[in-house]
Amino acid sequence: MKINGKHYYTVWMDKECRVYMIHQNELPFRFNIFESSNYKTTSWAIKEMVVRGAGAIGITAGFAIAQAFHEYKTNNLNNNFIEEAKMHIAQTRPTARNLFYAVDEVYSAGIEGGYAGAVNRAQELFQEDLEMCKAIGEYGNSLIGSKSRILTHCNAGSLAFVDYGSALAPIYLAYEKGKDVFVYVDETRPRSQGAKLTAWELGHQGVPYSIIPDNAAAHYMSKHEIDLLIVGADRIAKNGDIANKIGTLEKAICAKYFGIPFYIAAPTSTFDFECENGTKITIEERSQDEVIYQTGMTKHGNLNTIMVCSPNANAKNPAFDVTPAELITGIITEHGIIEANTKSIMTLQAK
Amino acid sequence: MKINGKHYYTVWMDKECRVYMIHQNELPFRFNIFESSNYKTTSWAIKEMVVRGAGAIGITAGFAIAQAFHEYKTNNLNNNFIEEAKMHIAQTRPTARNLFYAVDEVYSAGIEGGYAGAVNRAQELFQEDLEMCKAIGEYGNSLIGSKSRILTHCNAGSLAFVDYGSALAPIYLAYEKGKDVFVYVDETRPRSQGAKLTAWELGHQGVPYSIIPDNAAAHYMSKHEIDLLIVGADRIAKNGDIANKIGTLEKAICAKYFGIPFYIAAPTSTFDFECENGTKITIEERSQDEVIYQTGMTKHGNLNTIMVCSPNANAKNPAFDVTPAELITGIITEHGIIEANTKSIMTLQAK
Repeated sequence: MKINGKHYYTVWMDKECRVYMIHQNELPFRFNIFESSNYKTTSWAIKEMVVRGAGAIGITAGFAIAQAFHEYKTNNLNNNFIEEAKMHIAQTRPTARNLFYAVDEVYSAGIEGGYAGAVNRAQELFQEDLEMCKAIGEYGNSLIGSKSRILTHCNAGSLAFVDYGSALAPIYLAYEKGKDVFVYVDETRPRSQGAKLTAWELGHQGVPYSIIPDNAAAHYMSKHEIDLLIVGADRIAKNGDIANKIGTLEKAICAKYFGIPFYIAAPTSTFDFECENGTKITIEERSQDEVIYQTGMTKHGNLNTIMVCSPNANAKNPAFDVTPAELITGIITEHGIIEANTKSIMTLQAK
Repeated sequence: MKINGKHYYTVWMDKECRVYMIHQNELPFRFNIFESSNYKTTSWAIKEMVVRGAGAIGITAGFAIAQAFHEYKTNNLNNNFIEEAKMHIAQTRPTARNLFYAVDEVYSAGIEGGYAGAVNRAQELFQEDLEMCKAIGEYGNSLIGSKSRILTHCNAGSLAFVDYGSALAPIYLAYEKGKDVFVYVDETRPRSQGAKLTAWELGHQGVPYSIIPDNAAAHYMSKHEIDLLIVGADRIAKNGDIANKIGTLEKAICAKYFGIPFYIAAPTSTFDFECENGTKITIEERSQDEVIYQTGMTKHGNLNTIMVCSPNANAKNPAFDVTPAELITGIITEHGIIEANTKSIMTLQAK
């Protein structure tokens, strides 16, 4: 993605095994690159959400394993070092599927091919993430007319992968091809990833957009001002039910009511072929403080946290919801656009 | 309503024509009573939203006219004074139907019966508001089971009227009668009237509740954790379409999808019998700053305003949306629960 006119990836690794990442904890108010020269610092960055988003976390974890092999070789350490590093990295974010996959892949390549094998595999995963998002962009772009108003929820953009993203990839490609696109960006309370990250990304790429309160999506649908919805997914069950950021279900129901196409954009790694349907997905309940407090920038340019509700109030904060397959028009993957049903999803598993 | 255990009305007037109101601009972080001894100060309070909510604004405007008659009599002023006062008060909030009604009623009573006539009529309107909300509470309570989980949006509570409110009146009555009620309070971005005012009101009455992000309503519906929705209305068209706070439409669509009853609570004064349907209602677009900035309390107890999105972002901010009659289970009025259709609404006009 372009930031102040210069191209950046969300995370990358140089030839000396130094890992660099956009410091997402400081966005959108400050743009900094976080640099890590060893697997422990990289693990800390994953845990503390310097890097976030399933794709980006996976790539970073793969880089961390490569760093461990680099440290092992450079410092002539004993064999336990690699095993300890693997465990340490795998424990940073306990529910991230992409993380476990990348850790296993790079570890196996390192056991077989040593330091060079680990680095090659980690960089291959980086390239695969890039190609996968580009392919999602190409397939998704076919759904976008020459003049389109698109609603998205949360951030499934460049910052959640190495580049391009899932839900935003088709929009970036459509924009590059000269289509007249406009993006309605759901604020996405309580963590406001739409207002803070998606708006930041789109703004730097020059894509026209407006933030809207989450409450306003149905209003714009009712006024025929939204042609299409594209959102990401955290997990897709075998029957096509999907778990995604809280509020996705409301948007899907409203889109159905108004007859507007509702698409999920997600790579094959998001599919959980072992999960029968959405009822099997446990929804994480997060701290009520995310609803009660908000952090932002004062007029003096400092970050401050304030209470935005009645003192002594309590709040509930489910992080995700489940959208049933019947509300989903299609799923945009790197292998094409498929229907949200078991038959189509099983075809994908075979690829 | 009870505040720290003591009973208060939202606004009231004493025998010396001093008007008192809960200073709603300072809620929920500070509780203060604003006092006004003349119509100009009371008008300022309406304009600056010291008092808000259709019902409460109307009563306050009526009190202001009574104050003008009091000032006229006490200071032996010329006749122009009353005419000027009437114009001044009527111009405080240009779109408030209840305000014009109260101003005309109290003015006419004053012209006919002098100072005493104006005061009597203003206090009558106060009593009528109280009785109306109590009646809405009684009818609405019949919809609430002995154990009920109820979702509400925005603030249509005591603070929007003299006491009890419209949407919250049935909940308060059910709670007083010992029913096991629990209220899901939509945060109601961008102005957060749910998190700031409804949570404050419910907390002081002891009614169990939780604030939820606006995004989470459909999630709780899907989990069978919501039995009933009750919201207020800003305007009701002849065919039963209603305009209410932005986000109401989303909740109504989701309630329909899950087969959960969706009720509007509103007095007859909210019905616009001249308005054919919802398409005739113009939606106010408010400043984007309400989305971009948030005001709340710092840990040091000071109020502060922070930017809560990407710097240089832009936002859209429609204040209301229109919910079509087909999504409304019924409308709870002071004359009973009616269907959201022209036939039922015309019956109400005759009362």
